[in-house]
Amino acid sequence: MRIGMIGLGKMGGNMAERLRRAGHEVVGYDRDPAISDVGSLKELAERLEAPRAVWVMVPAGEPTRATVAELGEILDAGDVIIDGGNSHYIDDQRHAEELKAKNVGFVDVGVSGGVWGLENGYALMAGGDAEHIERLMPIFKALKPEGPDGFVHAGAVGAGHFAKMVHNGIEYGMMQAFAEGWELLEAADVVTDVAGAFKSWRHGTVIRSWLLDLMVRALEEDPELAGLRGYAQDSGEGRWTVQAAVDHAVPLPVITAALYARFASRQDDSPAMKVVAALRNQFGGHAVTSATSGGDGESPSGTAG
Amino acid sequence: MRIGMIGLGKMGGNMAERLRRAGHEVVGYDRDPAISDVGSLKELAERLEAPRAVWVMVPAGEPTRATVAELGEILDAGDVIIDGGNSHYIDDQRHAEELKAKNVGFVDVGVSGGVWGLENGYALMAGGDAEHIERLMPIFKALKPEGPDGFVHAGAVGAGHFAKMVHNGIEYGMMQAFAEGWELLEAADVVTDVAGAFKSWRHGTVIRSWLLDLMVRALEEDPELAGLRGYAQDSGEGRWTVQAAVDHAVPLPVITAALYARFASRQDDSPAMKVVAALRNQFGGHAVTSATSGGDGESPSGTAG
Amino acid sequence: MRIGMIGLGKMGGNMAERLRRAGHEVVGYDRDPAISDVGSLKELAERLEAPRAVWVMVPAGEPTRATVAELGEILDAGDVIIDGGNSHYIDDQRHAEELKAKNVGFVDVGVSGGVWGLENGYALMAGGDAEHIERLMPIFKALKPEGPDGFVHAGAVGAGHFAKMVHNGIEYGMMQAFAEGWELLEAADVVTDVAGAFKSWRHGTVIRSWLLDLMVRALEEDPELAGLRGYAQDSGEGRWTVQAAVDHAVPLPVITAALYARFASRQDDSPAMKVVAALRNQFGGHAVTSATSGGDGESPSGTAG
Amino acid sequence: MRIGMIGLGKMGGNMAERLRRAGHEVVGYDRDPAISDVGSLKELAERLEAPRAVWVMVPAGEPTRATVAELGEILDAGDVIIDGGNSHYIDDQRHAEELKAKNVGFVDVGVSGGVWGLENGYALMAGGDAEHIERLMPIFKALKPEGPDGFVHAGAVGAGHFAKMVHNGIEYGMMQAFAEGWELLEAADVVTDVAGAFKSWRHGTVIRSWLLDLMVRALEEDPELAGLRGYAQDSGEGRWTVQAAVDHAVPLPVITAALYARFASRQDDSPAMKVVAALRNQFGGHAVTSATSGGDGESPSGTAG
Repeated sequence: MRIGMIGLGKMGGNMAERLRRAGHEVVGYDRDPAISDVGSLKELAERLEAPRAVWVMVPAGEPTRATVAELGEILDAGDVIIDGGNSHYIDDQRHAEELKAKNVGFVDVGVSGGVWGLENGYALMAGGDAEHIERLMPIFKALKPEGPDGFVHAGAVGAGHFAKMVHNGIEYGMMQAFAEGWELLEAADVVTDVAGAFKSWRHGTVIRSWLLDLMVRALEEDPELAGLRGYAQDSGEGRWTVQAAVDHAVPLPVITAALYARFASRQDDSPAMKVVAALRNQFGGHAVTSATSGGDGESPSGTAG
Repeated sequence: MRIGMIGLGKMGGNMAERLRRAGHEVVGYDRDPAISDVGSLKELAERLEAPRAVWVMVPAGEPTRATVAELGEILDAGDVIIDGGNSHYIDDQRHAEELKAKNVGFVDVGVSGGVWGLENGYALMAGGDAEHIERLMPIFKALKPEGPDGFVHAGAVGAGHFAKMVHNGIEYGMMQAFAEGWELLEAADVVTDVAGAFKSWRHGTVIRSWLLDLMVRALEEDPELAGLRGYAQDSGEGRWTVQAAVDHAVPLPVITAALYARFASRQDDSPAMKVVAALRNQFGGHAVTSATSGGDGESPSGTAG
Repeated sequence: MRIGMIGLGKMGGNMAERLRRAGHEVVGYDRDPAISDVGSLKELAERLEAPRAVWVMVPAGEPTRATVAELGEILDAGDVIIDGGNSHYIDDQRHAEELKAKNVGFVDVGVSGGVWGLENGYALMAGGDAEHIERLMPIFKALKPEGPDGFVHAGAVGAGHFAKMVHNGIEYGMMQAFAEGWELLEAADVVTDVAGAFKSWRHGTVIRSWLLDLMVRALEEDPELAGLRGYAQDSGEGRWTVQAAVDHAVPLPVITAALYARFASRQDDSPAMKVVAALRNQFGGHAVTSATSGGDGESPSGTAG
Repeated sequence: MRIGMIGLGKMGGNMAERLRRAGHEVVGYDRDPAISDVGSLKELAERLEAPRAVWVMVPAGEPTRATVAELGEILDAGDVIIDGGNSHYIDDQRHAEELKAKNVGFVDVGVSGGVWGLENGYALMAGGDAEHIERLMPIFKALKPEGPDGFVHAGAVGAGHFAKMVHNGIEYGMMQAFAEGWELLEAADVVTDVAGAFKSWRHGTVIRSWLLDLMVRALEEDPELAGLRGYAQDSGEGRWTVQAAVDHAVPLPVITAALYARFASRQDDSPAMKVVAALRNQFGGHAVTSATSGGDGESPSGTAG
């Protein structure tokens, strides 16, 4: 079938390519004219046949909201917009509500796969009406990995991005589990072939996984990870996962700890620990300001022998 | 080669079977005479040829310590004992030290695989002298999964069980990450096909893993896990992981949170939360004892409209 | 001075009483006519002199929003509304913005003190314009504890409730710290006079505090807390604290853990731990469903000795 | 009464002074001859009358163990040794057991108070036989703060240090709670008078405490804590608290989080977060190594508008 793709960056561009390889026609739009097939969203719409399908693959938040709003002006009743970015599920629900007035459909799709997706396929989690999902199945089938699984119609609008959000939350926890294991192995110095231990775990163990495969690959490139800083960004999805958990009174200790470890990794110096240092100093009385004196309140010591 | 196997339970029995299928001779001893090949450890030793190899596969702690001590009396210089149970790595180091006086070798092997190991092979992490490891390689090769990986000589004595301990710590964190994700999906009720979402993640996603496969299998058997209580034992290894981390000043927030979640799952009522309830009651003054009155200290409210 | 007080429940009623004892005139409104001085907000406004001051002390959320909106219709330029409930600081900022059109002032005040406040005074954290704060100082002085401290002009509108929110977050962490200490003392059974230990800590220690005093009082009433369930509600403020932290990428491990402990205390059975139990069962193969069999994947064991 | 004091450092020296002010005779020994009353432990013993009481106030671990062992050689049946350092309670139990053979008594005392103790008194938690505790009460009364509380006979040998250990665990949690609150207030920038908010909390609030007093004092000296690094040592007692909790299957999320925050504060770069960074890089494929590319796996993005 024919579909419009808005945003031809690393993700959108590769997805367009995978769709074309599967025999679909993709009309692409990007604000970079050098890679865009059309000059405007209006022109994009004209190049598609009703009922149109337009896949939005631009950064979450304002860019996506603006694109969906503009499409809402241009498209006609019966058309459907697919948001394949990392939008918050509440945004999805708002978009669907707004578009309903014009009878334009809305489907949200959480996409996993990164640069590996072009060759291996993209895992897709979709939210929306059954009628829209069904109409788009040829597209989903072309994008997803071959074989069973790799696609789910997770529920109504918002469910696709919600599922992807939780997927990423789980991913945070798993990554941190591997990370902690590695740090302990390195610190304890009982296991002398740490990279070898990780490699051995790839078969027959309970923790075998794609993340373990990636970890082995990383350790093969740099066995001590010496070339890396212990610094990690977080995408919005980890935060949203925690906020959704708090909203629903669900305790999420592991995923939250993983998120906080990322927050802390970006601090040069921990403000909270300044307070702890300050309090420890206070134990020792006014005149004393070195960190060691804090031992006083906590660990009286004398000199004898 | 010929090897002695002590402990013919689910693990030891299957491992003996896998070794025999690979052409090794196994002389098995179990305290249950019905499944034992020999009547005593002494007889076991007599049935093996020097230099002997004896694999101990009995519960960690006292049973393993007693078995190793008894073998130390019976075996001769040049023989080697392999502890394939879940012993603490400090026990291993003590065993090796004690046996050194008699020139009996000691190798510790962390074993992963459970009941799946008979067919798929067991992942093995070994600690000990290179000379012993080399001599035992035919045994390790027969036990481990086919193909690359699945075995590591992790370091000196203790390193095998240390590696297995950390493996299990990572496993705790990963299991809890999946568990939290499921709880949030169920609680939020945005995703209506939760089992389907997990199933879809098996291909193309970042979190694809054997644990996810097991989870999908569990959800296929019981989509709401209605037949299960939220109750989880912990093996010693999760505790040891945390204690080793504390010894080495390594922060382990995710693995520890996973361990604590298991502790909490076994409490009918949380003693700590009784204190929180008691303090909340105190906010409200003497006369008030219902839990809701605690809102007072924290959330003043009135009645108006 | 003369002030209107809306909401004459436990908090508002006591605050009105404390104000009257200090010589202020309070015109009270409550939807319960039996305790209300006036029949409507309109009548309340008529009974005050311009520039009026009206203190809103009703439940946070919709009741407060509705009351502020209605007052906005009734009051005149130069009047000021004080929200002394537990509103979210974002609500405050919206209220101030909306009222600005009519030139009605808005001040948010976080109030701590519970039923003890009538006699001891209420700790007050205020947000708003310096001009409004100054005008209201006689009211604040009457409400706050005698002596220094107990009042802060924390910043612009929203700062009062933000400060109170963080105060409550800290409170959550402190309460949980005491709770965990008590649970460990009870479980370890090394200290046989646990209540005595807590009592002894009231003087000379680092942890002496009002919460410790309350804890001692609770243990005096019920030394084993046998009459209480380990069940704790959370007010919105703990959740908001965590959500504000996530918004600002601030790691808050202790306060979050305290909040999650409350969430967990309200679950009969942990959904997450059902997943852990399910995964442990899967380790043991299809036929096995008892929780203990999961030990398999994690702790191979045999029978020998 | 007359007592020997071993270790005349900041703690032991001040305690000797406080005892003397109360009318007791103290014979002090320190390895520094300049401040020691006697030349050896033997001489110390000779200067005391049977039944002797000797208070050991030297660093925990090897120094204390060596001192107790040496005293065991020198003292006679009926004498009693008091360990007022920060020993592990298991050490106490071993000491008592060893000394029992010679009928020398042993009492462990957890001491809180730091440099403030000389004037304010020391909070004391004692473990041992009632007979010994009774005999030593004049000493305890002189050391402890005036008024009620400040002393507890917590149980048998070990109970004193166990109680002090848990006290310090609670202290860790409380300090971290204040620290997190401060960090959030500073980061959010809604409250503009953060130091003022803390100061205001000293009266009328739920969180009023000695630690809050110290915090206010610290902020008065350095409102932004600009002169401090976010770096905090931990005494052994926090670690022991967590390890005791793990031994007894008690979940301790807050105290453990506070301990881990200290561990993390001492790392220049988090090894665990190097792994997270490495995994994020792997999402982006081989050629990509900058941290931002990891966003790929987690947050597909394109360029459009």
